[in-house]
Amino acid sequence: MFHAIPDGITAPKGFTAAGVKAGIKKSGKEDVAVIYSSVPASVAAVFTTNTMAAAPVIISRRAVEKGRAQAVVVNSGCANASTGPQGMVDAQAMAHITASLLNLDDAAVVVASTGIIGVNLPMGKIADGIKQAVEELSVDGHAAALQAIMTTDTQPKVCAYEFKLNGVPVRIAGMAKGSGMIHPNMATMLAFITTDAAVSPPVLRQALNEAVALSFNMITVDGDTSTNDMVCVLANGLAGNSELTAPNDPQYNEFVTALREVCTYLAQQVVRDGEGATKFLEIKVQGATTFAAAKQAAMAVAKSPLVKTAFFGEDPNWGRILCAVGYSGVGAEPEKTSLAIGDLTIVTAGMGTQVDTEALKKIMAEHDIVITIDLGMGSSEATVWTCDFSYEYVKINGEYHT
Amino acid sequence: MFHAIPDGITAPKGFTAAGVKAGIKKSGKEDVAVIYSSVPASVAAVFTTNTMAAAPVIISRRAVEKGRAQAVVVNSGCANASTGPQGMVDAQAMAHITASLLNLDDAAVVVASTGIIGVNLPMGKIADGIKQAVEELSVDGHAAALQAIMTTDTQPKVCAYEFKLNGVPVRIAGMAKGSGMIHPNMATMLAFITTDAAVSPPVLRQALNEAVALSFNMITVDGDTSTNDMVCVLANGLAGNSELTAPNDPQYNEFVTALREVCTYLAQQVVRDGEGATKFLEIKVQGATTFAAAKQAAMAVAKSPLVKTAFFGEDPNWGRILCAVGYSGVGAEPEKTSLAIGDLTIVTAGMGTQVDTEALKKIMAEHDIVITIDLGMGSSEATVWTCDFSYEYVKINGEYHT
Repeated sequence: MFHAIPDGITAPKGFTAAGVKAGIKKSGKEDVAVIYSSVPASVAAVFTTNTMAAAPVIISRRAVEKGRAQAVVVNSGCANASTGPQGMVDAQAMAHITASLLNLDDAAVVVASTGIIGVNLPMGKIADGIKQAVEELSVDGHAAALQAIMTTDTQPKVCAYEFKLNGVPVRIAGMAKGSGMIHPNMATMLAFITTDAAVSPPVLRQALNEAVALSFNMITVDGDTSTNDMVCVLANGLAGNSELTAPNDPQYNEFVTALREVCTYLAQQVVRDGEGATKFLEIKVQGATTFAAAKQAAMAVAKSPLVKTAFFGEDPNWGRILCAVGYSGVGAEPEKTSLAIGDLTIVTAGMGTQVDTEALKKIMAEHDIVITIDLGMGSSEATVWTCDFSYEYVKINGEYHT
Repeated sequence: MFHAIPDGITAPKGFTAAGVKAGIKKSGKEDVAVIYSSVPASVAAVFTTNTMAAAPVIISRRAVEKGRAQAVVVNSGCANASTGPQGMVDAQAMAHITASLLNLDDAAVVVASTGIIGVNLPMGKIADGIKQAVEELSVDGHAAALQAIMTTDTQPKVCAYEFKLNGVPVRIAGMAKGSGMIHPNMATMLAFITTDAAVSPPVLRQALNEAVALSFNMITVDGDTSTNDMVCVLANGLAGNSELTAPNDPQYNEFVTALREVCTYLAQQVVRDGEGATKFLEIKVQGATTFAAAKQAAMAVAKSPLVKTAFFGEDPNWGRILCAVGYSGVGAEPEKTSLAIGDLTIVTAGMGTQVDTEALKKIMAEHDIVITIDLGMGSSEATVWTCDFSYEYVKINGEYHT
């Protein structure tokens, strides 16, 4: 039985967390978080593919490669990006300070930063903050840790579930901060997932890749990929299930399903909280030749400013959707293409149909809208989630001054 | 000597034009144009790569393949896109009606449409409009023809030049209507170029491809590529120069330069008149391994909503520019990357420099801003033009209702 439970990332056995006010954020809110597992955990992570990756991403990539970690240290308020050699020294120091206090190897600590770009970390404040956070580590610290990773998020993004692996109760939990549109300076998406399942590092990596491919990689807010994006999972094995060491183990599908559930929930929350978002759009492309083609077509629609502003205006301007599919590069042909908004068929064979205008108006007025495109070319499909483009987006991203 | 001359697309010898009010546009303004050459002309065109291409694009592709044409017929107010088989019949009929009145083969007529998508052409009005336009064809008709291709353009886009080929005075002229952001329903870019130079069809095609690659293909307004986009050039040879039949002819470079000048001027005008645009941004990428890589990096910056809103807000948020270069896929490395806004160096080796804040503020307040990015990877460069993202863009594209 898979079911949601209250609490945050300390719900799985053996995890504690803390979030403290180190004085990095101008607002004075929590800005340093530590997550700790009482025993070494398998670790896997996916990082931004941006070649301008920030220093903490480079440091964490190295740590994660080893497959084992025991702590995560995160700061908000400063991204430690575009900071050159000093940035690398500072990110390494964050790992070292945390490791020393917890009696770990530096390489057992994953480091993440989010906030202003091009500014060096205030290392005095960071060091004091980490020290305080380590002292305050507790099962109750999950809420403060969540606060400490948020920047301009208007909603906390957190979930926890219990399920069974081979009959053994296992817990998995995750928290995230928003991407795209979210931070005026740097659109960073961070997600941290904890589980007490026993999973070997290579299998954890494979499971995370599968889960991310259908969740975090299927959202777009404004098409920009940040220098600091990271999704990281720690699995410490304290649930006591027999260790999952191979993808053909019957436990594997159950574990991936749970992990994907966490990732999908967090990814969708990120889109829902995209700054200025007034609509949550699910774009399904069916009838594609491959999953990649389906995703490519769906992403073209999801990224189109003309489509996004039309939904903001509640205008069922289907020509813009077809147009985006047409330039997506998947070779869509009008005669084979159909389109539905909600449960109303709008286009068949590339041409508009007689539509119940009142019913369509109602659908367009809803907050969550499903757009289904059938390419009529094959049997693959993909679903992408995005939000609309509003005045508020331009305001937040245009009126904020560095 | 290459110099600008007044008048529009009838400036080259042998061309006449007309624009009439056929009642297709709700505004009642001019909406049908005909351009006519008194003798058969070489023709070349580039069309949208959108696979949902509108009927007139498909009809015109066939006409242009033959390499000779003598007339262009254009309507605004209805794009004849997503109109299925009836759309094809109607586009063919536009060619046929024009050809009959002018005593030409149907295939000698290029057809273009722009306006609302998914609606069939009002063929009675179209037929009457074409008849009236053909009757009114004159050298003075260029201004009305220009009016008839415009939709929500706030500025006419037209230019004409005189230059010499082998000592013989030659004229070239062009007019365009805007793309992206321009029309609430369908972002169509149309450009028609006339010249009295004698150029063989294959050389005209090559010259147009070269000119478009460095002009129309280097602009982006919102990244959307319409179903109706078209750039078409007619060269009727009445200037009397010896026909340009090979790219190694010394005349070739002069002709391409003139053609590129026309295309660049019109392309830049399209960007300047992007709806809601308050800034004209020139994005130069230098030090790339290839032209394609330089263009790719420049386009990533030009398309980034975070960059575009920052410039709207006059915020020199260079992190967003670096971030876009980083995800562009060209493998840029921070240590090698530098960035200038106007003549001020903002970033060297991936890190911010000490900048004269007052001087930077002045540059950001200007209407035309040049952003120069050096990747430090090679010696190729590319220049892309775009505009900013403003409230007005969201308003025009979100509040308009189909």
